[in-house]
Amino acid sequence: MRILFLGDVMGRAGRNAVAEHLPDLRTRLRADFVVINGENASNGMGLNANHAAALFEAGADCVTLGDHAFDQKDMMTHIAQDARIIRPLNYAKDAPGRGVNVFDAGRGRRIMVLQALGQTFMKRPFADPFSAVEAELKRVPLGARADAILVDFHAEATSEKMAMGHWCDGRASLVVGTHTHVPTGDAQILGKGTAYLTDAGMCGDYDSVIGMEKAEPMRRFITGMPKGRFTPAEGEATLAGVFVVTDDKTGKATSCQMIRLGGRLAQSLPE
Amino acid sequence: MRILFLGDVMGRAGRNAVAEHLPDLRTRLRADFVVINGENASNGMGLNANHAAALFEAGADCVTLGDHAFDQKDMMTHIAQDARIIRPLNYAKDAPGRGVNVFDAGRGRRIMVLQALGQTFMKRPFADPFSAVEAELKRVPLGARADAILVDFHAEATSEKMAMGHWCDGRASLVVGTHTHVPTGDAQILGKGTAYLTDAGMCGDYDSVIGMEKAEPMRRFITGMPKGRFTPAEGEATLAGVFVVTDDKTGKATSCQMIRLGGRLAQSLPE
Amino acid sequence: MRILFLGDVMGRAGRNAVAEHLPDLRTRLRADFVVINGENASNGMGLNANHAAALFEAGADCVTLGDHAFDQKDMMTHIAQDARIIRPLNYAKDAPGRGVNVFDAGRGRRIMVLQALGQTFMKRPFADPFSAVEAELKRVPLGARADAILVDFHAEATSEKMAMGHWCDGRASLVVGTHTHVPTGDAQILGKGTAYLTDAGMCGDYDSVIGMEKAEPMRRFITGMPKGRFTPAEGEATLAGVFVVTDDKTGKATSCQMIRLGGRLAQSLPE
Amino acid sequence: MRILFLGDVMGRAGRNAVAEHLPDLRTRLRADFVVINGENASNGMGLNANHAAALFEAGADCVTLGDHAFDQKDMMTHIAQDARIIRPLNYAKDAPGRGVNVFDAGRGRRIMVLQALGQTFMKRPFADPFSAVEAELKRVPLGARADAILVDFHAEATSEKMAMGHWCDGRASLVVGTHTHVPTGDAQILGKGTAYLTDAGMCGDYDSVIGMEKAEPMRRFITGMPKGRFTPAEGEATLAGVFVVTDDKTGKATSCQMIRLGGRLAQSLPE
Ligand SMILES: [Fe+2]
Ligand SMILES: [Fe+2]
Ligand SMILES: [Fe+2]
Ligand SMILES: [Fe+2]
Ligand SMILES: [Fe+2]
Ligand SMILES: [Fe+2]
Ligand SMILES: [Fe+2]
Ligand SMILES: [Fe+2]
Repeated sequence: MRILFLGDVMGRAGRNAVAEHLPDLRTRLRADFVVINGENASNGMGLNANHAAALFEAGADCVTLGDHAFDQKDMMTHIAQDARIIRPLNYAKDAPGRGVNVFDAGRGRRIMVLQALGQTFMKRPFADPFSAVEAELKRVPLGARADAILVDFHAEATSEKMAMGHWCDGRASLVVGTHTHVPTGDAQILGKGTAYLTDAGMCGDYDSVIGMEKAEPMRRFITGMPKGRFTPAEGEATLAGVFVVTDDKTGKATSCQMIRLGGRLAQSLPE
Repeated sequence: MRILFLGDVMGRAGRNAVAEHLPDLRTRLRADFVVINGENASNGMGLNANHAAALFEAGADCVTLGDHAFDQKDMMTHIAQDARIIRPLNYAKDAPGRGVNVFDAGRGRRIMVLQALGQTFMKRPFADPFSAVEAELKRVPLGARADAILVDFHAEATSEKMAMGHWCDGRASLVVGTHTHVPTGDAQILGKGTAYLTDAGMCGDYDSVIGMEKAEPMRRFITGMPKGRFTPAEGEATLAGVFVVTDDKTGKATSCQMIRLGGRLAQSLPE
Repeated sequence: MRILFLGDVMGRAGRNAVAEHLPDLRTRLRADFVVINGENASNGMGLNANHAAALFEAGADCVTLGDHAFDQKDMMTHIAQDARIIRPLNYAKDAPGRGVNVFDAGRGRRIMVLQALGQTFMKRPFADPFSAVEAELKRVPLGARADAILVDFHAEATSEKMAMGHWCDGRASLVVGTHTHVPTGDAQILGKGTAYLTDAGMCGDYDSVIGMEKAEPMRRFITGMPKGRFTPAEGEATLAGVFVVTDDKTGKATSCQMIRLGGRLAQSLPE
Repeated sequence: MRILFLGDVMGRAGRNAVAEHLPDLRTRLRADFVVINGENASNGMGLNANHAAALFEAGADCVTLGDHAFDQKDMMTHIAQDARIIRPLNYAKDAPGRGVNVFDAGRGRRIMVLQALGQTFMKRPFADPFSAVEAELKRVPLGARADAILVDFHAEATSEKMAMGHWCDGRASLVVGTHTHVPTGDAQILGKGTAYLTDAGMCGDYDSVIGMEKAEPMRRFITGMPKGRFTPAEGEATLAGVFVVTDDKTGKATSCQMIRLGGRLAQSLPE
């Protein structure tokens, strides 16, 4: 299976880049399944139903969220109506929507997508993600009840992310981190066959502070005094993510490559 | 000026990779100046005088530290005797050693190296790094009193690191992050000419949890119960860092490329 | 039922004060049941089997622990052999021992004691304490399956502690905080009959930094440089805690008073 | 000198209690100087100019703030016009207003009031409070250039607060903590003559979660899902604080007693 994952879409610049590049990219990579993290697509904070529709329109098969899952209030009700939208398994006891789903990836193949939040350095406490992910991986074993499994681990700390990669090694096709908005350059296939990337990075303007217009976050760091609001940077976005090919017999990865397309960053596409 | 920076050297595996690859790499890149972050070179915790000597022997001109600066107690006195070793400017009011120095980079050129610690998500509070860096950049203006300036920003949060990059933009040759032990893939030259990379990554074994043998950190994440000690992973290390070329007339960067050499990660070297 | 609770016993000074004062105090208060938090009784870090024995010898019927539960390694095995020792319900998935027990309080009365850890400002992530406590309060309803219920909520943040008090209101006899080592002066009976105190304080020397000899913690705050180890302060300890009387028909509290006995603090004992 | 300090005034309930009780209390205690922490007086968030006027009207001579100093935007400009309002010394590099002032306490006596923010467990990083306080205590030595010195240490962690108490011991008349909204019962005079109380508590409704209406904070703790806004609880407030008598010859404390007046908590007033 050929799987494309794109990191946190950041505001209008990120949505525009998805709309502009994804249709061609999907074709070029002959992707069977496309997952996009959309937790910042609406003004940098959450995802509303309209912007979710735009991501699906551009070619996403599944949209994941994160700690900002419900910053746009209409997602509180919308998520129950669209089974393609996944929020973290451990977002909250009473969260609406689902943290995992199994999708049809064409030619009878099934892909399970799940998301979990990390505990380290997060603003709120979340329940243990290792147990939450474990339960799903046991319920739907790779190669038996799913042909591929994608874990979006939305977390800050590199230690927790690498530990999650190893924890899922051999049991998922891909463990990809999100949340930091910076792509990491450590794409690899772990010892038991799971593709791993610490962070996908954002689909956003990299002349910014994690996708936000620079002035206000810099003011806060430098003066300690907030003045205005955060707004997404509007320069041309770079699509950032990872492309993985799996063996349909085992669900394990045979290749794992970082994707950077458009915008300021050095370009990186599989040949 | 041709400047090579390598990220946190992690234990014996990291030291071995530096010893094995750096002499050739330095020649191949025709580097004028080499800086290595050594804060984890001694058993993953701090840097002792012997291991510092080994890094210099292999080709470092300057060694930076970090929050683990004084984990090896002999560094408390050794640092005062070796002006090539730089600890964070804002490590502590009473810290021994220096946080900045100006070095001879050959042919009459001077390079200033400084280090600061971030405040976000760190285990201890540190004084404001933006003020600390600002003071040095004002004292030694780029292009006037230094031909190149390298800022090692040892920090966790991507937001704080990007803000520091922009804060130094046009006033430093390179702002490179360290501390997370994962290389980022966002090398770029910012708008006013400063090369920037969110994190250099570690010189260590990437089949690990941030360079540590997997078993114990995974046990802690998964069971919540510590059992043993952390020890550095011993598999072949990848050298990770960044290579920057600056214009000697302005001190600004003309190229900025990530370096990954040896070990498990995809290789990345300038042509 | 007449219930005495004493906060975190801090090192030898705390143990000595318990040994010296508790027998008389127990008699004077005609206490039916005595619970002591012992998480710091052994050198300020954890509780070993010998020191647990000393607390029981002095008059404790039950000893609770905290985030330091297993700092003394022999508690890892000892706890399974002594059902009077309670560690937090949410200490860790694989923690030995128990987080709750029902005790005989004399004349056929049963008291349930449970402990939970807070999530806010703690060094490690812990599972949700509200769910953990809720499950026990549902399993053993006050007035039906227990004549009294004591909740030791070992937490840092005053907001989380007050929320736990209200969460248990009407369902527990007493919710008492521990962990900060400073007694609070807000003893009250909440609207539905639960006695509440934000923190019991420590049984330790109050000429200290939370029970530790002042010099080293002050050095760390002031210089940022650690030098030595933390050791418990050895001055005369104040016993600190709370005394609650409950109605045996309902399990609800009829009085709730702070206890401070011995040492430097103003004395406070029920008449 | 007879000094009354009242902790964080919480919304309308707190303001009403100050207006109702302070005039009599001031008379009864024959207080020479009254300081009130007002950081939550305006809807629980910050202090506006009108509410500051009401606190002065009721009998405050000085009002201190805290991390919420500028939540009400008019304080950004108002503070410069009223030298009786003190914000933390280390609030931010570019904060308006002052962190310290010397006041006339009658009969030629001068009292210096200063405030600092702690670093541990706070939401933003603040500069080192120990250095900031030290500088003022050196500039205005107790007994020489001030007849009394009051330090409001607005901090979360009990360890940091006790360390600040000892750091100022013999150099200030009173070190009183604020910020946690729960009064502590550890009032004492330290070894070199400084009165100390870990936290003054709030002037607010104690049937609440740190002064806020219970429902919303409890919902967040219990479900993890925010729904509404925080609003101050409206039940009758308890005035909480500390009353200190100093020796005018030395500036050191001769007595230190907790104050609790009105509302739900056990009453506590000097005879
Ligand atoms: Fe995001
Ligand atoms: Fe996020
Ligand atoms: Fe490091
Ligand atoms: Fe570090
Ligand atoms: Fe404790
Ligand atoms: Fe504790
Ligand atoms: Fe407050
Ligand atoms: Fe506050």
